[in-house]
Amino acid sequence: MIESIAIVGGTHGNETSGIQLVRNWQQHGCPARFQALNISLHIANQAALDANVRFVEEDLNRQFTLEALDAGSSSKEGRLAQALNKAFGPKGNAKTDLVVDIHNTTSAMGATLIILEADEFHTQLARYVKQHMPEANILLEDEKPYLEHGYLCTTGKRGVMIEVGGQPQGVLREDVYLLTQTMAEVILDFCLAYNQDSLETDALSPCEVFRLGENISFPLDENGQRTAMIHHALQDADFKPLMPGMPMFRTFDGHDIVWQGETETYPHFINEAAYFKLDVAFATATRIAL
Amino acid sequence: MIESIAIVGGTHGNETSGIQLVRNWQQHGCPARFQALNISLHIANQAALDANVRFVEEDLNRQFTLEALDAGSSSKEGRLAQALNKAFGPKGNAKTDLVVDIHNTTSAMGATLIILEADEFHTQLARYVKQHMPEANILLEDEKPYLEHGYLCTTGKRGVMIEVGGQPQGVLREDVYLLTQTMAEVILDFCLAYNQDSLETDALSPCEVFRLGENISFPLDENGQRTAMIHHALQDADFKPLMPGMPMFRTFDGHDIVWQGETETYPHFINEAAYFKLDVAFATATRIAL
Repeated sequence: MIESIAIVGGTHGNETSGIQLVRNWQQHGCPARFQALNISLHIANQAALDANVRFVEEDLNRQFTLEALDAGSSSKEGRLAQALNKAFGPKGNAKTDLVVDIHNTTSAMGATLIILEADEFHTQLARYVKQHMPEANILLEDEKPYLEHGYLCTTGKRGVMIEVGGQPQGVLREDVYLLTQTMAEVILDFCLAYNQDSLETDALSPCEVFRLGENISFPLDENGQRTAMIHHALQDADFKPLMPGMPMFRTFDGHDIVWQGETETYPHFINEAAYFKLDVAFATATRIAL
Repeated sequence: MIESIAIVGGTHGNETSGIQLVRNWQQHGCPARFQALNISLHIANQAALDANVRFVEEDLNRQFTLEALDAGSSSKEGRLAQALNKAFGPKGNAKTDLVVDIHNTTSAMGATLIILEADEFHTQLARYVKQHMPEANILLEDEKPYLEHGYLCTTGKRGVMIEVGGQPQGVLREDVYLLTQTMAEVILDFCLAYNQDSLETDALSPCEVFRLGENISFPLDENGQRTAMIHHALQDADFKPLMPGMPMFRTFDGHDIVWQGETETYPHFINEAAYFKLDVAFATATRIAL
């Protein structure tokens, strides 16, 4: 049973669509069909929101490893993580059955559901979302066990993220907002069906899932300055196959750098603003059936 | 004669395309055909760039009124404005003939040349740019005299801005970079022709120009919270005619708010991230021939 559900916006203070959805549901109420669910609504990092920045001192969405929570960082976001872990968790022994943390990205990732494990619950959830929202992408980040992630949503017994783009930081686009709202509602519809044992699991056929690979960095010169930008053929082509030999970077002196993997990959988080300072150009993925 | 030209990037530290163009020209040199021009290349606000923010304490591009320069604000950007005014100006008696200040915007404004007066020089420049780069937009902000603007570019005898979008803050897109580079080169080509008296001014036919009107704000409730977002029909429709009765906002409870002007207007800076905190939704313009 999924009894208590926390819907969280504003984990990053300049990602507006989750913030606006939480505010609107706080003001007008969640859609009436979800009354059987115990839903709580949260703005995670009000200080970052007030400053219109991703975070004030440290990225809040990396503060939720068991080690970091035990050590107790004294940064603003470290202290906030302690408080949120007390509210939703404590991690590993959580009172909240499901934490849904809402993000947006400058990458053209459309409506993406990020799941962190491929157990029966999340497999059914992924299939259900894909069936009811065929334009959605499912991203599986299971490169380490669920509890080892530092994400806010891992304070819950189960935790997922909604990630929608492309939307600039600090901007609210209607298309991105509506995709965010639809995906949140489909997740809650799934929880209703899951609790009522009314899921026709046989009807849920395996779905396409992108499994996170590695981060690809921009090429840098000896001074750490970039020598290239994302190639126009790759820009906005998130989750499209990048085949060996296809261009991924254009250098500033006019040459192409091509993908040299042995097989195709599925790039995403292409040119994400928040990873710009880290010189991360995009992440790779393999495509699997779940 | 246009003898000394300052090309400036990084007036806003998270607007990457001008920064990258200045860096690339610093490293590899300007295109050889511009050797007859005395071009200097500048990054205006290195501290803002290092922090990947628009500005550290105050918006640098509002610090160049004669009053502000005389008063001498003690903010970081206020002091920087003094130094830049010494380097390019002093304003009103400038040693630099033309300052070209390069910006980008999250709005889908394409390649836009912003001019601040419609005298013979700027009229010829606008027509030349439109002739050689037909996809460009020309925006005329002549609601007050040239010297009364607070923009960095007004430190020069003449000053213009390049404004290209849509590009999220802190992200470099190849399409936006190439439009920026092309517009900078077309402006320099114009200066060459202007100096050589080789402009066939008769051949420069009047061009379409958008003349700045006013800012339109988001609707707010009694607590100052927004009650609506940019309508999907208006999003990304910069410089397209918005006719009376056409939707401009979608409220969060699902209603449309329409443009109630008596005539069509030409919205731009639609959903610009930097104006989000000011609750500015877009700016209006009239369309004129110059």
